[in-house]
Amino acid sequence: MMGHAASSNNSAHFLATEDAYPSRNGQAAKLVKRHDPVVYAPENSSAPIASSSIKQFEQQGFMVLDNVFSPQEVNELLAESARLRSATTDQQGMGTITELGRSDVRSVFDVHDNSPVFKKLASDERLAGLARYILYDDVYIHPSRLNYKPGFHGKEFYWHSDFETWHVEDGMPRMRALSMSITLTENFSQNGPLMLIPSSHQQYAVCPGETPSNNHQASLKKQEYGVPSNACLTSLVEKQGIVNATGKPGSVIVFDCNAIHGSNGNITPYPRANVFFVYNALSNKVAQPFCEQPPRPEHICTRANIKPLSTVNPTDKA
Amino acid sequence: MMGHAASSNNSAHFLATEDAYPSRNGQAAKLVKRHDPVVYAPENSSAPIASSSIKQFEQQGFMVLDNVFSPQEVNELLAESARLRSATTDQQGMGTITELGRSDVRSVFDVHDNSPVFKKLASDERLAGLARYILYDDVYIHPSRLNYKPGFHGKEFYWHSDFETWHVEDGMPRMRALSMSITLTENFSQNGPLMLIPSSHQQYAVCPGETPSNNHQASLKKQEYGVPSNACLTSLVEKQGIVNATGKPGSVIVFDCNAIHGSNGNITPYPRANVFFVYNALSNKVAQPFCEQPPRPEHICTRANIKPLSTVNPTDKA
Repeated sequence: MMGHAASSNNSAHFLATEDAYPSRNGQAAKLVKRHDPVVYAPENSSAPIASSSIKQFEQQGFMVLDNVFSPQEVNELLAESARLRSATTDQQGMGTITELGRSDVRSVFDVHDNSPVFKKLASDERLAGLARYILYDDVYIHPSRLNYKPGFHGKEFYWHSDFETWHVEDGMPRMRALSMSITLTENFSQNGPLMLIPSSHQQYAVCPGETPSNNHQASLKKQEYGVPSNACLTSLVEKQGIVNATGKPGSVIVFDCNAIHGSNGNITPYPRANVFFVYNALSNKVAQPFCEQPPRPEHICTRANIKPLSTVNPTDKA
Repeated sequence: MMGHAASSNNSAHFLATEDAYPSRNGQAAKLVKRHDPVVYAPENSSAPIASSSIKQFEQQGFMVLDNVFSPQEVNELLAESARLRSATTDQQGMGTITELGRSDVRSVFDVHDNSPVFKKLASDERLAGLARYILYDDVYIHPSRLNYKPGFHGKEFYWHSDFETWHVEDGMPRMRALSMSITLTENFSQNGPLMLIPSSHQQYAVCPGETPSNNHQASLKKQEYGVPSNACLTSLVEKQGIVNATGKPGSVIVFDCNAIHGSNGNITPYPRANVFFVYNALSNKVAQPFCEQPPRPEHICTRANIKPLSTVNPTDKA
């Protein structure tokens, strides 16, 4: 297991309690430079995937890895997803989010804790091992989620940087986290795939406004705070456009915590179902939120229950 | 000028006042066979575009013609569009439709009557000549519209057949009409392009429900009646999937009146602006609506003011 962060080449120095990425604090919307590395592993270290993919991730802020999981594995994950969604439809507890104005389950949280199948998946070396390499640290799951965009009436999700929210509302100190979305159904251009703005992760979009209390209850359906301005978005998109992260079932979309992304609605008959894990470096554990609100609940932000992921198969360890 | 319809090879016989395509009349949702031809010109007649394109239109129900209008022509049309949109923003008269919950002008109606530029465009032989060939009759504009899907918050439009509405609410007797959408900005996969279900025009999706009074006031923002069932849509999509009708500015998307289409929202910074003309065969003039409601207003359905389009340049006439 790797010990701790190595590279700090473009990392500015801030005290642990200092706000390295202020947002929603009365500043006007603007783009500022990222202070942190994207790939923390030293350049000469051996990557678990092609080094060209790592390079692309560093430059673009994302990569799509095809055929990571076999059709049989995907079927097992789909079955477990269906089980979790039907188990949670009726209770509507804190761990599920429905479509705006509908009863369909759009998100089930904490699947790495609530399901042995997804717990094992979160620790799978194909995912966790890659996260450990890029973040060059032990990793834990910040949140996990089953994202289900139903056919016919799946709703859009507006542009945002996850890090902006995790920083302001959860107190994640620095950009040393990444997301992995495992596609359980085909994600194609028409059923609301993840859309990413290439290289947007290299800048930080300071957002206007503030953070209302209990923002997360609304923001997971429709984000109204922590939203980059039109001018910032236009400036980011003008450079390299927008990319659809599409893939057959069993692909993995890996994207940096600060990559700006969004998605269209889904009026096709084909649901989009993905499992979503956020890997955070253990050295980047959340602290006090950088806003005036109390921390968000544990199922949205792991705080009390931080556990570094162990490898599933000890023989995989270097 | 062509005299009247020639081909009636797969056309069933109905009296003029009979309802050849009942819908919203208490029947369960279902797919029934189309009774009418798609291309009315005789097979041996000389087409104004490649016969392979005409064949594709007949089979798929649509075609995208690239580079029909020059960049200079597009710029003139864009300027006229901007003028019309700003002229109508303040008054919010009957001829404009705003985004649901917003004041942005989404549609300006009757542009072929209200603007000399668009009047000339509607009669342009590249459009009207092609419509005359496919419908093999004199043609008139059923409605015309400037469709503007703004960047950042353009709204989706759900699946529908235009003909179903034109038949039920306007009394258009038969399927002998087509639409042309002239792209004034680039239509790409992410800014809410027209999505079409190939070959859906060969069947008629009988819709459940009825037609409430003044349905058009809501349906042009968000259609809730005349909507095909999930089962019908799934059956249609399963055969040949869904196609994005994308194109650079100056392209023309031609689609049959019964081709089922919809579009996603637009969260990109790039607005989608198209001019939309519906050409109806003069022999297929609207009659009494096939529902219990009074006819829709003239700017949505030309009824009192039906005028066959003359050719702009008399030398173009055969």
